[in-house]
Amino acid sequence: MSLTQETLPAADPVGLHRVLDRPRVLPQAAARLDARPEVADDEVRLRVERLNLDAASYRQLVGEHQQPDGALDVPALRARVLGIVAERGKMQNPVTGSGGMLLGTVEEVGPASPLGLRVGDRVATLVSLSLTPLVLADGLERWDGRGEQVPTDGHAILFGRSVAAVLPDDLPDHLALSVMDVCGAPALTRRVVAAHHERDRGAPVVAVVGAAGKSGSLSLAAARDAGAARVVGVVPVEHERAALEASGLADAVVLADARDPVALRDAVVAGGGPADVTVVCVDVPGCEGGAVLATADGGTVVFFSMATSFTAAALGAEGLAADVTMLVGNGYVPGHAAYALDLVRTVPAVRSLLEQREARR
Amino acid sequence: MSLTQETLPAADPVGLHRVLDRPRVLPQAAARLDARPEVADDEVRLRVERLNLDAASYRQLVGEHQQPDGALDVPALRARVLGIVAERGKMQNPVTGSGGMLLGTVEEVGPASPLGLRVGDRVATLVSLSLTPLVLADGLERWDGRGEQVPTDGHAILFGRSVAAVLPDDLPDHLALSVMDVCGAPALTRRVVAAHHERDRGAPVVAVVGAAGKSGSLSLAAARDAGAARVVGVVPVEHERAALEASGLADAVVLADARDPVALRDAVVAGGGPADVTVVCVDVPGCEGGAVLATADGGTVVFFSMATSFTAAALGAEGLAADVTMLVGNGYVPGHAAYALDLVRTVPAVRSLLEQREARR
Repeated sequence: MSLTQETLPAADPVGLHRVLDRPRVLPQAAARLDARPEVADDEVRLRVERLNLDAASYRQLVGEHQQPDGALDVPALRARVLGIVAERGKMQNPVTGSGGMLLGTVEEVGPASPLGLRVGDRVATLVSLSLTPLVLADGLERWDGRGEQVPTDGHAILFGRSVAAVLPDDLPDHLALSVMDVCGAPALTRRVVAAHHERDRGAPVVAVVGAAGKSGSLSLAAARDAGAARVVGVVPVEHERAALEASGLADAVVLADARDPVALRDAVVAGGGPADVTVVCVDVPGCEGGAVLATADGGTVVFFSMATSFTAAALGAEGLAADVTMLVGNGYVPGHAAYALDLVRTVPAVRSLLEQREARR
Repeated sequence: MSLTQETLPAADPVGLHRVLDRPRVLPQAAARLDARPEVADDEVRLRVERLNLDAASYRQLVGEHQQPDGALDVPALRARVLGIVAERGKMQNPVTGSGGMLLGTVEEVGPASPLGLRVGDRVATLVSLSLTPLVLADGLERWDGRGEQVPTDGHAILFGRSVAAVLPDDLPDHLALSVMDVCGAPALTRRVVAAHHERDRGAPVVAVVGAAGKSGSLSLAAARDAGAARVVGVVPVEHERAALEASGLADAVVLADARDPVALRDAVVAGGGPADVTVVCVDVPGCEGGAVLATADGGTVVFFSMATSFTAAALGAEGLAADVTMLVGNGYVPGHAAYALDLVRTVPAVRSLLEQREARR
């Protein structure tokens, strides 16, 4: 790259100075990033230990490199990943557009970095590989191609506004990563429950839809931690009901198909609702109407499911003349990873539910 | 319908008691509603004067009834609308799923109706025809089929949680209806701006993207009315910039393509931002990243555009490590129609912008 001869342009907290496309776009939308190792004042350089390719990206890459007899062409797969990173300066699958995350160790910290990292910290990135400047220094020889975990060596750059979490010593990597993957949900749930208190509305009744899942069980624990008057877990099947009830994470556990608005409302009411705060953690489409209907006037619905339809939520609430605040679940809340890990440490029922889930995979 | 012999089941505020489908679904999803004229305790019956078919529904119906020579088969079109209403008990186009709204006069008010209407009030419904029980009593002879405004006679039912607004005496019907169509935007903008004050964050800087449109100009006026420190209007083209600047509704008017995140951020900053509250009123896809980037940490983005992508907003904010609250613009806020009409009355620049828009159509 000819640009390596120039000085890095003035640092921008979202990484615009690393974008090589003209006109300049955001790093995620860019075709090419400048991945040189020199850090700007607010940047951090990591020594990369492992990439964790996004599941959609990995599936697509494997599909591309299957031989006629069904065997995986591992050298070609490695060459493809190396080629993408060399060309784009980041590991963003050009077909799926997705990335993944990485594990590494902090190698250099710019003097103005706001991330609070220290040289030697072992971290996971919580922003996507699709916007993280990356150079691979090995030939991926240690990757057998059979999984989305890619052992490697190289460097990556974090911007002023990137997010990385220090991996805890007291929890296994796989558990910590699994929790970090959904850590926005408990952090935002805590904030919304606390805001209800602040506005002098008293302690809210909180319903979590999809309460036995990863983000659901963490959100239940966060709601109780933030002082909810009552937490109601909604699950779709009997074995989840039994597991959640045994965990003690909820004051009431109710069964309902979240896609059936009347059934969802009736179940939440039977559990002690309607809810002042409803947290939607189920990844199936069509839960918007039920979530609105299960929520009291003046209440809040937080949608964490990526299957949420914006128009179904907006028009559904309007059609029901429902005065509810509806939040797009932002995966970033300051301190989210540390808070979620603390819940895992301090609420044994959460850890146990998460470990049961991992064991079933 | 055999059910007319039975007693109406116990009233439900969202109208479940009028749903004839089994299992019972919400009125909007129902194939058939019970549209009998007797009102439940919390219902209101209207004498219908005019239907206002939704544009998508009207286009579809006209397309169905075009003769080979291109002429409209008006008797067949009338028969089709009469047939839908007779069969479904509501005017919901079975192809588009959409409805529209209606104008009428209050004929009977149940003793427990919370809507605050009186017999004789002339009202417009602000919930969709797709969920409003309706019986047509004429043959639509006064409708020439050439427009979506359908003069008729009949009755319609409002539920406890329906929404209807009394038409003002001092504004032309067309202007009042046009304002009511988007009245959720200024009401929610006012609430969000006021909430910033309450949380002791001081008066916010508010940016309205798509500020020269109907919902945009009303939102600008609402932001100023609610005590914004500064209001910035963002528009895409020069003639809108000139018109908005002349109106005086904004402290600064800036030009930017809202689909370009960097351009949008830079424009809002140049106008006095970043914004504490960003209101997105432009109906084009791809504005999520720019809206997030133009908003200060701790700020709020309100998405009113139906072109908003839930995942683009959620992942965009996460990728930018942006601690912003993102709201799905709920079209229903108590008192929204009265507030929007008051803005039109008290802020001459809003009325003038709206009338200029209507004149250009």
